[in-house]
Amino acid sequence: MAGTKYAYVKKFELPDPLLPETYIVVRLDGHGFHRLSQDHDFTKPNDERALQLMDHAARDIMNEFKEVVLAFGESDEYSFLFRKSAAVYNRRHAKILSTITSLFTSSYVFNWARYFPETRLLYPPSFDGRVILYPSSQEVRDYFSWRQADTHINNLYNTTFWALVQQGGETTTQAHATLRGTVSKTKHEILFSRFGINYNKVSERYRKGSIVVREESSEEQDVSLNDDQCTNRLTESDDGASGVKEGRMNQPKARDTRKIKTSISVLHCDIIGKEFWDTRPWLLE
Amino acid sequence: MAGTKYAYVKKFELPDPLLPETYIVVRLDGHGFHRLSQDHDFTKPNDERALQLMDHAARDIMNEFKEVVLAFGESDEYSFLFRKSAAVYNRRHAKILSTITSLFTSSYVFNWARYFPETRLLYPPSFDGRVILYPSSQEVRDYFSWRQADTHINNLYNTTFWALVQQGGETTTQAHATLRGTVSKTKHEILFSRFGINYNKVSERYRKGSIVVREESSEEQDVSLNDDQCTNRLTESDDGASGVKEGRMNQPKARDTRKIKTSISVLHCDIIGKEFWDTRPWLLE
Amino acid sequence: MAGTKYAYVKKFELPDPLLPETYIVVRLDGHGFHRLSQDHDFTKPNDERALQLMDHAARDIMNEFKEVVLAFGESDEYSFLFRKSAAVYNRRHAKILSTITSLFTSSYVFNWARYFPETRLLYPPSFDGRVILYPSSQEVRDYFSWRQADTHINNLYNTTFWALVQQGGETTTQAHATLRGTVSKTKHEILFSRFGINYNKVSERYRKGSIVVREESSEEQDVSLNDDQCTNRLTESDDGASGVKEGRMNQPKARDTRKIKTSISVLHCDIIGKEFWDTRPWLLE
Amino acid sequence: MAGTKYAYVKKFELPDPLLPETYIVVRLDGHGFHRLSQDHDFTKPNDERALQLMDHAARDIMNEFKEVVLAFGESDEYSFLFRKSAAVYNRRHAKILSTITSLFTSSYVFNWARYFPETRLLYPPSFDGRVILYPSSQEVRDYFSWRQADTHINNLYNTTFWALVQQGGETTTQAHATLRGTVSKTKHEILFSRFGINYNKVSERYRKGSIVVREESSEEQDVSLNDDQCTNRLTESDDGASGVKEGRMNQPKARDTRKIKTSISVLHCDIIGKEFWDTRPWLLE
Repeated sequence: MAGTKYAYVKKFELPDPLLPETYIVVRLDGHGFHRLSQDHDFTKPNDERALQLMDHAARDIMNEFKEVVLAFGESDEYSFLFRKSAAVYNRRHAKILSTITSLFTSSYVFNWARYFPETRLLYPPSFDGRVILYPSSQEVRDYFSWRQADTHINNLYNTTFWALVQQGGETTTQAHATLRGTVSKTKHEILFSRFGINYNKVSERYRKGSIVVREESSEEQDVSLNDDQCTNRLTESDDGASGVKEGRMNQPKARDTRKIKTSISVLHCDIIGKEFWDTRPWLLE
Repeated sequence: MAGTKYAYVKKFELPDPLLPETYIVVRLDGHGFHRLSQDHDFTKPNDERALQLMDHAARDIMNEFKEVVLAFGESDEYSFLFRKSAAVYNRRHAKILSTITSLFTSSYVFNWARYFPETRLLYPPSFDGRVILYPSSQEVRDYFSWRQADTHINNLYNTTFWALVQQGGETTTQAHATLRGTVSKTKHEILFSRFGINYNKVSERYRKGSIVVREESSEEQDVSLNDDQCTNRLTESDDGASGVKEGRMNQPKARDTRKIKTSISVLHCDIIGKEFWDTRPWLLE
Repeated sequence: MAGTKYAYVKKFELPDPLLPETYIVVRLDGHGFHRLSQDHDFTKPNDERALQLMDHAARDIMNEFKEVVLAFGESDEYSFLFRKSAAVYNRRHAKILSTITSLFTSSYVFNWARYFPETRLLYPPSFDGRVILYPSSQEVRDYFSWRQADTHINNLYNTTFWALVQQGGETTTQAHATLRGTVSKTKHEILFSRFGINYNKVSERYRKGSIVVREESSEEQDVSLNDDQCTNRLTESDDGASGVKEGRMNQPKARDTRKIKTSISVLHCDIIGKEFWDTRPWLLE
Repeated sequence: MAGTKYAYVKKFELPDPLLPETYIVVRLDGHGFHRLSQDHDFTKPNDERALQLMDHAARDIMNEFKEVVLAFGESDEYSFLFRKSAAVYNRRHAKILSTITSLFTSSYVFNWARYFPETRLLYPPSFDGRVILYPSSQEVRDYFSWRQADTHINNLYNTTFWALVQQGGETTTQAHATLRGTVSKTKHEILFSRFGINYNKVSERYRKGSIVVREESSEEQDVSLNDDQCTNRLTESDDGASGVKEGRMNQPKARDTRKIKTSISVLHCDIIGKEFWDTRPWLLE
């Protein structure tokens, strides 16, 4: 048969399974988004539309990959957590990495016009991705704490920086100089005393980033999140994912004889403390 | 500083350099494109618009990654060849794989409307990717021969199959049965005797796939391809890439003291024989 | 400087760090030991001298690598467990694997004459090795249970097989046929009714394998193992390792302000149950 | 069956095939040989017995692994080259690395007494190993040139250094100071003018290292090496490997219809120039 003599080249495709029973984190980062944000006039220091578009793409990932239980996004990056028992694509490294990166990118471009109805996308944006394995739940919690702490640090800096520029009339060079070496408290004070901004009143989306979480509840009882600090909670039906419907999975009997209903929520709340995790034991089990 | 205590999680990000001085092939495959082609009424057995869209995305990859010297596409797959000395992203595996996959996907969605002006894209399509290393030029040639032979086999089958269905009135089940176990020659005869189709007159794009090649010429002399068998040659300026300009690279002095001008061409010609390679020694050196 | 122009070949040596904070198991297997045991007249079904020689080599590994906390041996194989925080050779895969394999082999040959004073070693024996990573302590316990269950199964079979041959006068072919498809209980009955052997009285070394464990005790108080089932406990000073002295390590302050004294014991006891692990929490923490 | 419930731990053993059709180099290095050489009174700057013992172990590797076509040794290191088509152990990384390291170590200890009849080995020596892949024959040649250039540099330094100490009465500190920053020519002059040593008359074993090569010849015709510069050529029958016989392999018909006879030679000649390789085309094909 034609082609058979060349088929030997397939043997150069080597297996690449990820270590079983480890938590898989896939982190995506925007490629050249500094320029992208300028070319498309993103609002500084945060562009609500761009962040919502990122969240939308993240929800599309979670609707497609049922073993992704949590995602965290800030700025032009997003991290996805697969449960440690995940069997997705037999845990093949390249397949997982490339498919997640591709679908996220695709959703971003596909949904652009929905969030930027008046701004034409000028060229195709792209993301890079990486896979990181964590053996234990503590490391996973610390990973997400690391990202949320980063969000806080960056957003406080950027909020103060752009206040100095936009309201204070400083040049960007001056603003950087003003902030050089300052601690958090000083930035809070600059914001409040000079610009009347109480940083703690800044939108939680900007201060905390976006947490997309697969919530579980038994059918008799709705998920109730009233007792935690999360606000701005959006279920996908509020926010409109790309035609994706609520996931519904039969859980293994051992856990619960009732059907478990899962839904995807977008939150902007603290995930460094233990409450977030304690109330959602399924994320790390 | 906030966040410092969590930064230890970065040490789980392990290095992943690819072996130096090997040819890097990245192959992308459409994810669920059978369904995508039905949902968007792709013409059978080949949809010219869809293939041109794939070629467009491939050209965007080559405009962005100057070390990609050749690409080959058929149906919903595309393979990219980096020169063996490529230093892209310090040859980091995940970075290369994810970025190529992302940009291709992005370009595909971004340019959809250009090739399907009357068909709205219903949901975000995605691709998976893999990286394959080849130590020698012979293996690279055999890799591309393997893909082009595959194109031939698939296209001859599909062309005959859809003639039986569309013109011969067979059901798809009948058509599969008619073709079961037939050799190439029989399919040629069915096409010619029953449907008046001379397979060798079928568009080269369908029979040969798409070859996107970085052509080199010295500035005094234009690339002349008249003496090979390639037709349907399109330079990107004919075909309109997404605002990407002709690449221009200073080559190492050792090769040529004149400046080398490179351009990207889309061809549909034989790459199994030696002529294609002999006339483009820069591809494998 | 001479040689500089060739030094580029070093860049083909790629990094190979193992995932941090995972348990590292290195398992060694004798290469061609079926033939080796015949050529050197090993006693069947178990050769006490050969097993003691394996244990000796294992103790040499543990004296050299302080982060190895446990080893398990049976027949011609030995498994070594590094604590999950092990920093040995910066967790470089090839360095760890090759050095452990080399030192074990070296000790085996070096100490041969001590255990086989009347049998000259005819040729150099060798071992192969592999590295396996386990994310959690449960998997580590199950790994060692797997090996000890294997020891049990093999030893019961071999003990019955060789009783049939040596005392029952069967050929090896007949003995295999006699045992085909038999369950454990049947083998116990054959041993007892035909040969007067109470399998549970067979040496624990043969039934349980060898456990080499790094014991910890505070200086004021000796390790007391009276309350577990382990017998045949040998400290290295009883058994005479190759000039290696008792390890003594300062443990991190957080655990205990007193100095921890460690010693290496060879046991032949159950490690499938929880008692072994519960009394030695330092193995898996 | 007992043990079955634990067998899942096997799934953590991941595949590790090396890239096909690349040259495999395994390099072994003595672990702590500076101390070993002092503890066993090795002659400085070179100990003929120790080098011959290394060569012996290298020949044992080549007698066991027919796909190893070349080895190079100096001091306490040895490099082995597998032909690029090697199928040894299905090219499994850990299996190849660990077995080569183990057998070499084993042979070293096993044969110690033959080369050091009056010096008892005091403790088990060990080696570490690494695997390096090279895509092309030029890189392989450069790898061996790199090692031989290293041999030259080290030996010239050490020869001069020990002449200063042993004959010149300098302390080791003084000798290092004398040599600091000197070029090759200066060292040659010191050797000749102060100690009457013509470096070019120093044993080729010390200046060139040891090359162990699988020689090929047709049965009608013996290998003739008279026309190259190699001296001190020892076939294994002169030197006495551990009971290993001459290899004899049927080569693929395509190459030669006559049977090819192979033998292993130990040489101490130049391998940086092309003559060595030109006269042995089978090494790199």
